[in-house]
Amino acid sequence: MERPRHQGMVKNTYMRWRLPLVCLLWEVAMIVLFGVFVRFSPEADAHWEEEKREMNLTSDIENDFYFRYPSFQDVHVMIFVGFGFLMTFLKRYGFGAVGFNFLLAAFGIQWALLMQGWFHSFKSGKILIGVENLINADFCVGSVCIAFGAILGKTSPIQLLVMTLFQVTLFAVNEYILLNLLHVRDAGGSMTIHTFGAYFGLTVTRILYRPNLEQSKDKQGSVYHSDLFAMIGTLYLWMYWPSFNSAISEHGDAQHRAAINTYCSLAACVLTTMAFSSMLQKKGKLDMVHIQNATLAGGVAVGTSAEMMLTPYGSLIVGFICGIVSTVGYVYLTPFLESRLHIQDTCGIHNLHAMPGLIGGIVGAVTAAAATEDVYGKEGFIKAFDFTGTYRTRTPSVQGGFQAAGIVVSLLMAFAGGALVGAILKLPVWGDAAAENCFEDDIYWEVPEDEESDVYHMHHPDKPASP
Amino acid sequence: MERPRHQGMVKNTYMRWRLPLVCLLWEVAMIVLFGVFVRFSPEADAHWEEEKREMNLTSDIENDFYFRYPSFQDVHVMIFVGFGFLMTFLKRYGFGAVGFNFLLAAFGIQWALLMQGWFHSFKSGKILIGVENLINADFCVGSVCIAFGAILGKTSPIQLLVMTLFQVTLFAVNEYILLNLLHVRDAGGSMTIHTFGAYFGLTVTRILYRPNLEQSKDKQGSVYHSDLFAMIGTLYLWMYWPSFNSAISEHGDAQHRAAINTYCSLAACVLTTMAFSSMLQKKGKLDMVHIQNATLAGGVAVGTSAEMMLTPYGSLIVGFICGIVSTVGYVYLTPFLESRLHIQDTCGIHNLHAMPGLIGGIVGAVTAAAATEDVYGKEGFIKAFDFTGTYRTRTPSVQGGFQAAGIVVSLLMAFAGGALVGAILKLPVWGDAAAENCFEDDIYWEVPEDEESDVYHMHHPDKPASP
Amino acid sequence: MERPRHQGMVKNTYMRWRLPLVCLLWEVAMIVLFGVFVRFSPEADAHWEEEKREMNLTSDIENDFYFRYPSFQDVHVMIFVGFGFLMTFLKRYGFGAVGFNFLLAAFGIQWALLMQGWFHSFKSGKILIGVENLINADFCVGSVCIAFGAILGKTSPIQLLVMTLFQVTLFAVNEYILLNLLHVRDAGGSMTIHTFGAYFGLTVTRILYRPNLEQSKDKQGSVYHSDLFAMIGTLYLWMYWPSFNSAISEHGDAQHRAAINTYCSLAACVLTTMAFSSMLQKKGKLDMVHIQNATLAGGVAVGTSAEMMLTPYGSLIVGFICGIVSTVGYVYLTPFLESRLHIQDTCGIHNLHAMPGLIGGIVGAVTAAAATEDVYGKEGFIKAFDFTGTYRTRTPSVQGGFQAAGIVVSLLMAFAGGALVGAILKLPVWGDAAAENCFEDDIYWEVPEDEESDVYHMHHPDKPASP
Repeated sequence: MERPRHQGMVKNTYMRWRLPLVCLLWEVAMIVLFGVFVRFSPEADAHWEEEKREMNLTSDIENDFYFRYPSFQDVHVMIFVGFGFLMTFLKRYGFGAVGFNFLLAAFGIQWALLMQGWFHSFKSGKILIGVENLINADFCVGSVCIAFGAILGKTSPIQLLVMTLFQVTLFAVNEYILLNLLHVRDAGGSMTIHTFGAYFGLTVTRILYRPNLEQSKDKQGSVYHSDLFAMIGTLYLWMYWPSFNSAISEHGDAQHRAAINTYCSLAACVLTTMAFSSMLQKKGKLDMVHIQNATLAGGVAVGTSAEMMLTPYGSLIVGFICGIVSTVGYVYLTPFLESRLHIQDTCGIHNLHAMPGLIGGIVGAVTAAAATEDVYGKEGFIKAFDFTGTYRTRTPSVQGGFQAAGIVVSLLMAFAGGALVGAILKLPVWGDAAAENCFEDDIYWEVPEDEESDVYHMHHPDKPASP
Repeated sequence: MERPRHQGMVKNTYMRWRLPLVCLLWEVAMIVLFGVFVRFSPEADAHWEEEKREMNLTSDIENDFYFRYPSFQDVHVMIFVGFGFLMTFLKRYGFGAVGFNFLLAAFGIQWALLMQGWFHSFKSGKILIGVENLINADFCVGSVCIAFGAILGKTSPIQLLVMTLFQVTLFAVNEYILLNLLHVRDAGGSMTIHTFGAYFGLTVTRILYRPNLEQSKDKQGSVYHSDLFAMIGTLYLWMYWPSFNSAISEHGDAQHRAAINTYCSLAACVLTTMAFSSMLQKKGKLDMVHIQNATLAGGVAVGTSAEMMLTPYGSLIVGFICGIVSTVGYVYLTPFLESRLHIQDTCGIHNLHAMPGLIGGIVGAVTAAAATEDVYGKEGFIKAFDFTGTYRTRTPSVQGGFQAAGIVVSLLMAFAGGALVGAILKLPVWGDAAAENCFEDDIYWEVPEDEESDVYHMHHPDKPASP
Repeated sequence: MERPRHQGMVKNTYMRWRLPLVCLLWEVAMIVLFGVFVRFSPEADAHWEEEKREMNLTSDIENDFYFRYPSFQDVHVMIFVGFGFLMTFLKRYGFGAVGFNFLLAAFGIQWALLMQGWFHSFKSGKILIGVENLINADFCVGSVCIAFGAILGKTSPIQLLVMTLFQVTLFAVNEYILLNLLHVRDAGGSMTIHTFGAYFGLTVTRILYRPNLEQSKDKQGSVYHSDLFAMIGTLYLWMYWPSFNSAISEHGDAQHRAAINTYCSLAACVLTTMAFSSMLQKKGKLDMVHIQNATLAGGVAVGTSAEMMLTPYGSLIVGFICGIVSTVGYVYLTPFLESRLHIQDTCGIHNLHAMPGLIGGIVGAVTAAAATEDVYGKEGFIKAFDFTGTYRTRTPSVQGGFQAAGIVVSLLMAFAGGALVGAILKLPVWGDAAAENCFEDDIYWEVPEDEESDVYHMHHPDKPASP
């Protein structure tokens, strides 16, 4: 299994004490913090029986659980199977893709429950959690999974945990600024999840630039079956994206509408992705990289506006454009970013999350600015943008302006945060691999000896093994 | 990668301009038509807040979204992962199976929203869509996925898009005749989806008959892992079929009952499939082709009757029979259809959808004819068959007759439509591959060089590559 | 394909008449029993329309279907895809893992509907089934899937069906004793499903001890892609476990709470599993066996207490401990059990289900014993433990005692039942394979000839095949 490490610097990738230490200490910290702060929300607490009576709720179905739990499970699948398997396309990094995604997400959701809880669900010294908090924690971790895509194959599990710790923190701060201070709408997270997550990850990978990465170029491609594994990820992301964008919208028509808009946008996106994938390849053949990724851009790009009255044809237009932008990005922009700007973006998150996320923020701002009482109805208008309390007098065009400001804030947070975290991850203590060992599970995982040949010979006992 | 095309006619499979043109033009057409016609249904529109008050609805949960969205997502998974992966069993056509299924379904659902909308959801010049329309669009596309199974590996993506355009149109017409003119019940689509879709596909593949297909015989089998990928498709279809058959049934007991009946039928079907798979093989070994397909026949065959009072044991009987019929079909009928009738049915849809679909239509007719007020209750009886308005006086036996008429209409539409579409697809302009290149992704996809041997040698550096 | 069976006893693994006979006869028995006994529950019956009016239910959503169906589907996925794919890790036993799991579960759910129905849903001579019965049938079969894990690769499909028949029966009896006689709470089945299922399976495999199993040692490992297939199973089990533990809890806060507790426990479990997996390997590398299995122990271990006021931090602590216990079990205990106690546990169910199941029973007992009216509220307290009727005066500490008794009963039933069933399965009539043919699909399945080499040479036509 061991191969001579012939070139340059030999790095210490030995995880035996470092990784366990980080995992155990941090988990203990989680337990302590949960012990001090986290309790059940009223709808999940055994006192609900009494509270229900006080609120004159006559049916057990009047519990947020029944409004959001199916969407939660869909989002959960997107984070763990969707992102995890999407990244298994590399020929020898499937364990790392699925396994490290599993690790960072499992840690991240705990930390996110705390961080988001302090900002949004903090009452009399306690964080009260219910199903909506679980969804939000998954969302927050989604932005880390996105950033992971940029550095896939080049970092140690400890680096990923460190990045998760910081990114979740910054995500919660950014989200607080957007949702609470700017009073921005962003139910599907075009800004908070995708724009922030992607530019954060791109900044990190820029700082972790590896000049000799071509030494592992032979491992940066896929094999036939790894591409099929990746399609599992793609399809679950694509199918459940309507749940993602509608999961935390207001009960009723807003959730319903968000699902429909997302469904439409994603459908259109597939057509333009296929079109440009074929058009931009000189033999006219389709490229799995595009199909696996660019088909999803339509979901990203209606993340802000899906719950608004974007309308189905508006959604088709957004999906149409994003399929093109994303595919063109894979063909022209990714190589440019790598060669000129030294941004090594393993999964092409710039094309799948960054650009579509920006488009999503802009579409959201425009849709909000264009909102009228006529289109939404008087009450619907107030409910859709929560123009109540302090924000009673805010107009759609002002809302549009704040939405745009949200994009800018997210970008700034991503660049600043990414630079900071990139610098931390560059410290030579985290156990990342040398360039020639990138994209190889063998470094951090016990990998079974593949016996393709043995299997082959098992069935052809008359044929001897290669000499 | 390029191999000499030694035999016969060299076909032009160059997609570079044709496929993009079709995708882009058609998507633009969708946008225009959606812009003119498609709007949100009241329950997804921001005016819902006001409408809810007018209708005296006191709870947000009284929105079709909460009755049907979980089922919708299950159906969505069946269409994209279920059908997509079911067809990955071929050793070198996994990209085409999953990818083309993705393409045609993404286009098809848009066109289905329009076609079905004009027939069923057209109000004051607009198509008003909600979650039920999304399910119906998925259903409609399901019939195209079925037909795709017959021609898998032998057609270009453009042919698939052309077929989708026509088949969705014909599906909507057939569905209108059945549901509106004949007032037939078919919630799970034994007739509209399976019978129609399968005989349509079989007619198309008959007309596209390729006399030299044995030239690609070596690629018509599976490999070990491709059979496991296919099982992902099988299991998702099997598990979510109760959602499929109950998705658009009436709220309440009808949805509940449809799920139970389907669950029972599918369970029985697995047992008889296994039994006959072993019995019909001379060494008594199980055949993955049967397990992947015939186990699903029980779901097809209760598509019409699942929402009726078929009862659990009635469902078991239907599943019992269909597992046998379907497995026997794979062993004896498919080779017969190919050699004698020149019907080359790649996935054996005749066994999985055509025969069980017919059985399903018949079971539905019989179950309807046997309905009594005693079994359904007075109100339940009227609700189950919608014996209201014009149909107030229809009796069960008359209903049974109309159900039977629905089977005949579906068959006629399938044969006529399939013949027409087959003739169109036979035109030599669509870029399909020559016989010896069928069942090979390499024609339309960039396929990674598989490096099984390299991987092998990576781990055994002492062993040289084959000479 | 045929290899000389060189060693020892040649066993008759010919299934052609035996397997079909068992499948067909048993399925006919199911049909007869369903015909005599099984009918729809009121909420799934067409009379519901009338009953609803009598019960003054004004909304269609007041039907158990809408409270439990999404959870049911998640559980269904866990049983068929979760358990099925989890066991595909073996390099040449993927068909058997997925296929036999499919077979036994499809039979088991039917038999479980009857057995559990007689005990719990029997009214005026009929078993009335609704969605909750479907969930319970899946749960019951879950315990068989667990036991299957211990004997994976070493038994014939007939043996598995025989085991299912007996184990489902014993499960139902044990469940009746626990839930009805001892009035124990066990919504997620730490005792009834995991403890019982695992110790049952371990007893069976002990009795079926094969002294020469090292003859098939080369097939007991994984290959790269089989480990990725197994991760599909792992992740679906992990993601949907909150649905598993909440599926049959009381409507409202109990379901809500159970999902949150399980989510937390599982997240913590991932961190400690990763920590110990790395720590216990001398090179500090992660082991896929641990990631695939021990990460799930946290779900098992809150199976009893998840619906109680365990609190999120309590759940983290349980998950924390179980990740450690389970991983340590894989490293030290499994080899010990095999070499000293002759317990050959293919999937290590002792680590994933047996020990965590015991812990789960204990945690449940302690949590119940510690319950106070203060924490649960007066009404919540009564509802949580169903302290009504005969049990009106039971105190928490008494309840804790009965919970503990439930563990003991489950263990005794498992040992006694496992011994009995093991003895039956040892009879030389069931067609199991000889030791050197274990873990090999080829015995019971038609296996495609793998053409890795052909594929390779297809792309490198200049290189000849191995001489």
